Amino acid sequence: MHRTKVKVAQDVLDANDTIARANRADFDAAGVRVVNLMSAPGAGKTTLLERVLADGVVRDEAVRVGVLEGDVQGSLDAERLSALHVPVTQLNTAPGFGGECHLDANMVRAALPELALDEIELLVIENVGNLVCPAEFRVGEDARAMIASVTEGEDKPLKYPLMFRACELVVINKIDLLPHLELSLEDLLANLDRVNPHARHLLVSARTGEGVDAFADWLAEVARREAVPA
Amino acid sequence: MHRTKVKVAQDVLDANDTIARANRADFDAAGVRVVNLMSAPGAGKTTLLERVLADGVVRDEAVRVGVLEGDVQGSLDAERLSALHVPVTQLNTAPGFGGECHLDANMVRAALPELALDEIELLVIENVGNLVCPAEFRVGEDARAMIASVTEGEDKPLKYPLMFRACELVVINKIDLLPHLELSLEDLLANLDRVNPHARHLLVSARTGEGVDAFADWLAEVARREAVPA
Repeated sequence: MHRTKVKVAQDVLDANDTIARANRADFDAAGVRVVNLMSAPGAGKTTLLERVLADGVVRDEAVRVGVLEGDVQGSLDAERLSALHVPVTQLNTAPGFGGECHLDANMVRAALPELALDEIELLVIENVGNLVCPAEFRVGEDARAMIASVTEGEDKPLKYPLMFRACELVVINKIDLLPHLELSLEDLLANLDRVNPHARHLLVSARTGEGVDAFADWLAEVARREAVPA
Repeated sequence: MHRTKVKVAQDVLDANDTIARANRADFDAAGVRVVNLMSAPGAGKTTLLERVLADGVVRDEAVRVGVLEGDVQGSLDAERLSALHVPVTQLNTAPGFGGECHLDANMVRAALPELALDEIELLVIENVGNLVCPAEFRVGEDARAMIASVTEGEDKPLKYPLMFRACELVVINKIDLLPHLELSLEDLLANLDRVNPHARHLLVSARTGEGVDAFADWLAEVARREAVPA
C-alpha cells in the first residue's frame, strides 16, 4: 500500500517534468528564454518589473520582454505591467482547488497559445507569491530568480531553504528601508550562503531604483544565453 | 474520469474537516481554546507572539498560552518562544512532498499528544507563512487571525481574498514603518473592507509594542469564549 502511494506521487512529479520539457522545447523553438520569478507576497516582483520594463524592452539592452502573470485571482499586476506596453498574459489559479498556491507546468502550457512568443526574446513568469510550492514545480524556465525583501527578516533562507536553493539569483529588495529596520544584512547574506553558496545576490530598491540596473543586466544576460536542452 | 477526480477531491476535503472536528472536540474536552494564526512569510507572527507572551501568560490577563509552531523545517521560531517559558511544540511539514506549505487537521492531530493541554487555556497555532493554502484547511481552531504587514502593499486583500475572508481578525503590523513607505493605509483598509466587511482590524507594531495590548486583549477574549460545538 505504501509502495503504491509512493509510485503515484512519482507519476505526478514526472507528469509535471514531462510537460515542463515540452514547454521548454516550445520556448526554444520560438527563440525565447524564460525566467521564473518567485517571492513571498508583497516582496516587490511587480514593482521591480515595472522598474526594468518600459515600452516592452529591458532598458538599454533592447531585449523585448513579455510577462506571464500568475495570481490566485484578479489581474491587478497584469494591468500595472500592460500600462508599460509590455505584452502580458494573465494566468489565474483560482479555478483549481481553492486557488492553487503556485504555477505548474500544465498551467503554463495552457497559457502558451496566449503568449506572443514571436514578439519577444524573454518571457518573465511572475509566479504566485509564496516561498514554498513554486520552488517545487519547474514550468519550462531557463533560469529561476527570487526576490527576498529585507522586511521579511534574516531567517528566511533557513526557513524556506528549497526556494533559496532553487534559484540562481536572489534579489534582496527594499534596501531603502534598511536604516529603519533592525535587520542584519550580514546575517541574511550568511544564511543565504549557508543554504545556497552558488546563488548570486543583488541589493536593490525597486522603489528608488538603486541596484535595479544590475537586475536588468541579468535579464538581458539570460535572454542572450544559448538554448540548453531541458 | 473527470467525475471520479472530483469525487476524490471531495473525500479529501471531508477527511480534513472530520479530523478538524475531532481535534476541536479534544481541545474542548481539555478546556482549551485555539487560535489559528496565519500570514505571509516575515509578516511578524513570531515577533508579535514574543511581545504578548511572557512567562507563559498573555500579559495582564493571566491566560496561560501554549504555541504549536508550524514550519516547513527547522525550529528557529519555537526556540525564540520557548525562551519566554511558553510551552512550544514544533510541527515540521518537510516530511511531506517537498515540504507542505500549510498545516492541515491531520498534522495538528499528530502533534496532539505532544501538546501540554492540561497546562494551558489557549493554544496559538502559528501556521506556515503563506497567504493561500493555510486558509483552506481548518485544523480544529475556535478563531482565525492573520497578520498583514504594511510593507506588503495595499492590494493583498484583493489578491489573496480567501485568506482575508477566512479570518475574524486582521492584525496590520509594522505600522512603525508607515512614514517610510508610500503605502496608503486608507486604501489597504478599504480593500480589506471590500473583501471582508466583518473582519476586525488592529493597527500594531510588534517591534515598538504600539497596539500590541489590543491583540493580547483579543487573545484573552478568545480564551474566555464558551465552547461552541464544531
